Amino acid sequence: MADKIFRVNMTDLSTSVEDVPADWAGHGGRGLTSNIVAAEVPPTCQPLGPNNKLIFAPGLLSGTTASNSGRISAGAKSPLTGTIKESNSGGTSAQRLAKIGCKALIIEGQPQDDSWYSLLLTPEGITVSKEEELIGKGNFAVVEAVEKRFSGKIAVLSIGQAGEMLMTGANISVKDPGSHIRSLGRGGLGAVMGSKKIKFIALDAQNGKVDIADPEAFKAANKAFTKALVDHPVSQALGTYGTNVLVNIINEAGGFPTKNFSTGQFEGHEQISGETMHDLIVERGGKPTHGCHAGCVIKCSQIYNDLNGKYKTSGMEYESIWAMGADCTVDDLDQIAEMDSIMDDIGVDSIETSVAFGVAMEAKVLDFGDSKEMIRILTEEIAKGTALGRVIGNGAGSVGRTYGVARVPVVKNQAMPAYDPRAIKGIGITYATSTQGADHTMGYTIATEILGVGGTADPLSKEGMVELSRGLQIATAAIDSTGMCLFIAFAALDDGTCLPALIDMLNARFGIGLTADDVTNLGKSILKTEHAFNKAAGFTNLDDRLPEFFETEPIAPHNAVWDFTGEEIDTFWNF
Amino acid sequence: MADKIFRVNMTDLSTSVEDVPADWAGHGGRGLTSNIVAAEVPPTCQPLGPNNKLIFAPGLLSGTTASNSGRISAGAKSPLTGTIKESNSGGTSAQRLAKIGCKALIIEGQPQDDSWYSLLLTPEGITVSKEEELIGKGNFAVVEAVEKRFSGKIAVLSIGQAGEMLMTGANISVKDPGSHIRSLGRGGLGAVMGSKKIKFIALDAQNGKVDIADPEAFKAANKAFTKALVDHPVSQALGTYGTNVLVNIINEAGGFPTKNFSTGQFEGHEQISGETMHDLIVERGGKPTHGCHAGCVIKCSQIYNDLNGKYKTSGMEYESIWAMGADCTVDDLDQIAEMDSIMDDIGVDSIETSVAFGVAMEAKVLDFGDSKEMIRILTEEIAKGTALGRVIGNGAGSVGRTYGVARVPVVKNQAMPAYDPRAIKGIGITYATSTQGADHTMGYTIATEILGVGGTADPLSKEGMVELSRGLQIATAAIDSTGMCLFIAFAALDDGTCLPALIDMLNARFGIGLTADDVTNLGKSILKTEHAFNKAAGFTNLDDRLPEFFETEPIAPHNAVWDFTGEEIDTFWNF
Repeated sequence: MADKIFRVNMTDLSTSVEDVPADWAGHGGRGLTSNIVAAEVPPTCQPLGPNNKLIFAPGLLSGTTASNSGRISAGAKSPLTGTIKESNSGGTSAQRLAKIGCKALIIEGQPQDDSWYSLLLTPEGITVSKEEELIGKGNFAVVEAVEKRFSGKIAVLSIGQAGEMLMTGANISVKDPGSHIRSLGRGGLGAVMGSKKIKFIALDAQNGKVDIADPEAFKAANKAFTKALVDHPVSQALGTYGTNVLVNIINEAGGFPTKNFSTGQFEGHEQISGETMHDLIVERGGKPTHGCHAGCVIKCSQIYNDLNGKYKTSGMEYESIWAMGADCTVDDLDQIAEMDSIMDDIGVDSIETSVAFGVAMEAKVLDFGDSKEMIRILTEEIAKGTALGRVIGNGAGSVGRTYGVARVPVVKNQAMPAYDPRAIKGIGITYATSTQGADHTMGYTIATEILGVGGTADPLSKEGMVELSRGLQIATAAIDSTGMCLFIAFAALDDGTCLPALIDMLNARFGIGLTADDVTNLGKSILKTEHAFNKAAGFTNLDDRLPEFFETEPIAPHNAVWDFTGEEIDTFWNF
Repeated sequence: MADKIFRVNMTDLSTSVEDVPADWAGHGGRGLTSNIVAAEVPPTCQPLGPNNKLIFAPGLLSGTTASNSGRISAGAKSPLTGTIKESNSGGTSAQRLAKIGCKALIIEGQPQDDSWYSLLLTPEGITVSKEEELIGKGNFAVVEAVEKRFSGKIAVLSIGQAGEMLMTGANISVKDPGSHIRSLGRGGLGAVMGSKKIKFIALDAQNGKVDIADPEAFKAANKAFTKALVDHPVSQALGTYGTNVLVNIINEAGGFPTKNFSTGQFEGHEQISGETMHDLIVERGGKPTHGCHAGCVIKCSQIYNDLNGKYKTSGMEYESIWAMGADCTVDDLDQIAEMDSIMDDIGVDSIETSVAFGVAMEAKVLDFGDSKEMIRILTEEIAKGTALGRVIGNGAGSVGRTYGVARVPVVKNQAMPAYDPRAIKGIGITYATSTQGADHTMGYTIATEILGVGGTADPLSKEGMVELSRGLQIATAAIDSTGMCLFIAFAALDDGTCLPALIDMLNARFGIGLTADDVTNLGKSILKTEHAFNKAAGFTNLDDRLPEFFETEPIAPHNAVWDFTGEEIDTFWNF
């Protein structure tokens, strides 16, 4: 069926299904969410007010059999950063949305009273219902109840208590194939969904399916693409140890931010490493290898069981484990798994929230390493919306401002992930210049700096880092539009057959004739659209800077500081 | 004696007394603090980090016999707004600092450990001492202890618990002639003093005095100046009823922001009015008329006693009474006086903190009108630094961000004072364009819009308001440099003898030949210096805007909205 724009106005609860404007026809995923936000959201609007819009869009290849194409993008003006925001996730929603024939769901307006709602999307359109039963509940209860309430294969997007309470660390949860939780994690989009008073969105594709213009060509391209993915050594490492394979690697590189970014190596790194986790998972009958969406051939996820062999959590990423672990100096994987599960349930970004805990520890709100108190704060304060819970649930910048902490590792108020920019300088350029605040996924220079993918670069040298980040940010913006997982990038950077196969799939899906240059230009145009939105929202090049302490505090073991000048950083935008 | 720059570096505790650079010779008060901040503080620095500086400067005429010349200015990069900041106050410090021969005190650096310090300034220089006894104490205890500790006439600048805990609503307290508290109120300068780990600054002028180049001419000019002040009807009304004379006037005008800026008139206005307060003060044996510094001939302050005729507070300003009163819908002057006293003691800006309470009430943290709970939060939460205490102690923007409130009356994160910009439009231009965030004292258009001073203007019309605010902001920047109280402006605007007499005093003090044009140019150059600092700190014209809800929510009784376009506002800077 032809893809349509699905729209709901939460002020008057009206809905519509609209043709896709020509300008948006070639876009999907991030390219589409960012273009819609740029076209329809006033850049200076209050992100939690009626003038912001929340957009969901499957990628261009989502809903097809293309390997690893099951990512969904969500976009809005972020209440955390004030910038344009796109966050993407696996799970089942992208494929279901694509099969509904929904190119993008646009949620606008804001109810005038205190009522809560849910949305049901089917190929026929949107049904808005009042919701009472699930208000105040966590995501696990929501997914369970929604699966029971609707028959058939339902995908679910939902918010936990944090999103309901408009915390800027709130994420949007996405049901995965095992009925567990994946997350549209960063930038507080859960608060935007909460501000629209939508507790969950159920997606029922019924018998919908995605049309392929040239099925034979598509199949052949997908075969070549899949081979490139599974052959790459990084894909294989991710399949064995998950993303958490990085703990020992980044620690060894001295760029493993520890104790609120005060040193670059963590004494307890072995206890939380991917290798240790792998053995623990096997020992307890969990699954070390698991895909977050149907069609994934890398399978970096896992099922982590507790001491008694009972399911505890899945999709424990390196960044989450680092943040709860090294940044808060917690060296116990079971405690981390417990927190990961609670964060999934109440619906907060595990990076933002954990880095917020690290800042709170620096402010002496709790002790470094006190995972018991972290768990208490998660369940008794954040989930219940106490003042302390909101301060931490609003993210690292919030904690820093509330307690007058000078060492707050954020860019544009978004917490830095698991790579110290003093010791791994390329990622610092990504943090500084990304249109979305500090976010490693926007231009993952670690691939080249640390993993030797797509060439090599000395992580302690500034040489070539602006160019490296720029190239990767452009490529990422394009990849984020296809519905592809970012982890296809390793193969795409090293294997000459990968990217052409991806382009062949796009052409076969839509019956078009894209070239590699078109894809690069797509990435450039997305970045420029996002950057223009931010400028119109009041951001300047002075916002493309790391916090002061990275320049003045050398980090062990390399004794490295962040030494890019503003002028050097600003050359990023010369394209 | 020749004026000098006194400097202390809190990183190594070194001190110096330096000659005044030629560039700063013609400056005093705000002109001097802003020029020093612009010259020495990196605009993008972390305001609570070691690179910010805190400057104190008496006005050009402070320490002389000139009427109303006892204002001291404090300046820094504000941790509340991120802009340059000047705040000024009466009390005894300006005169004492001038008599010490200190043109400006510059406090830089930051101790590397947790020690606290005090400073003693005498004509010989600065003594830095470790302080333990008074840490954790309120301002009343500090003033009392410091008076005991030093013999002679000591002036005191101090911070309460809020400043120690780096709350961005923290002010700096200034001992007044009755050993009570006046405040360098706005912009969180108390947190900057706290970040320097200075609990108090004692000023001992010993036998120091200010030199006058032409004493006779000075005396004659002061006589004419004083006559102009005391003859003006607004001066007289201020002397009788204090600034609180405005309650009924602004309520009548429909621009009296009530219940977190949701309507323009307060049912309980009579109970908190200046007239009611005057009668209560007289009845209880207080003083309805009182000067905040020696030499004041307007005497808008008062001594407010409690039900038993015992001293409760002094210097209850209209803006504080409005903020605790109408904005929080509290209609009991005794409750307001109690809160005013507590705020003085713990050292928070009564405007910022009370507007923060109003936002907290909107967020349902406490009920509108619940002054008992406000008092509990002040004493049990803010003074003790709990999470809720810090959220409110950090100001209105902090509460709004923490609780996801869309209706937050701030500009550049500083709370709006007691005049609704929808119903009194000129003051909205001042709020929007001021280099310091929302601040009525930066360009008090109320004088013309409501009081008919310096002409008239229809407060509900946009006509001429940009020009009105511009003229007043330029004049104010100059007045704030002289050490004069802003209330000389009423006479200066209406009485042709006032401003020439002021200029004659400046010329007689320094043996120079300033003209009225020189004074206007001084004001312009100060504004431009401040504006340039803010631009270099990352502010753009998009920061010169009022919050969205002023444009969309009409305010009763005039059903008025804020309807200036961005382009119209931006013409402010065309000079």
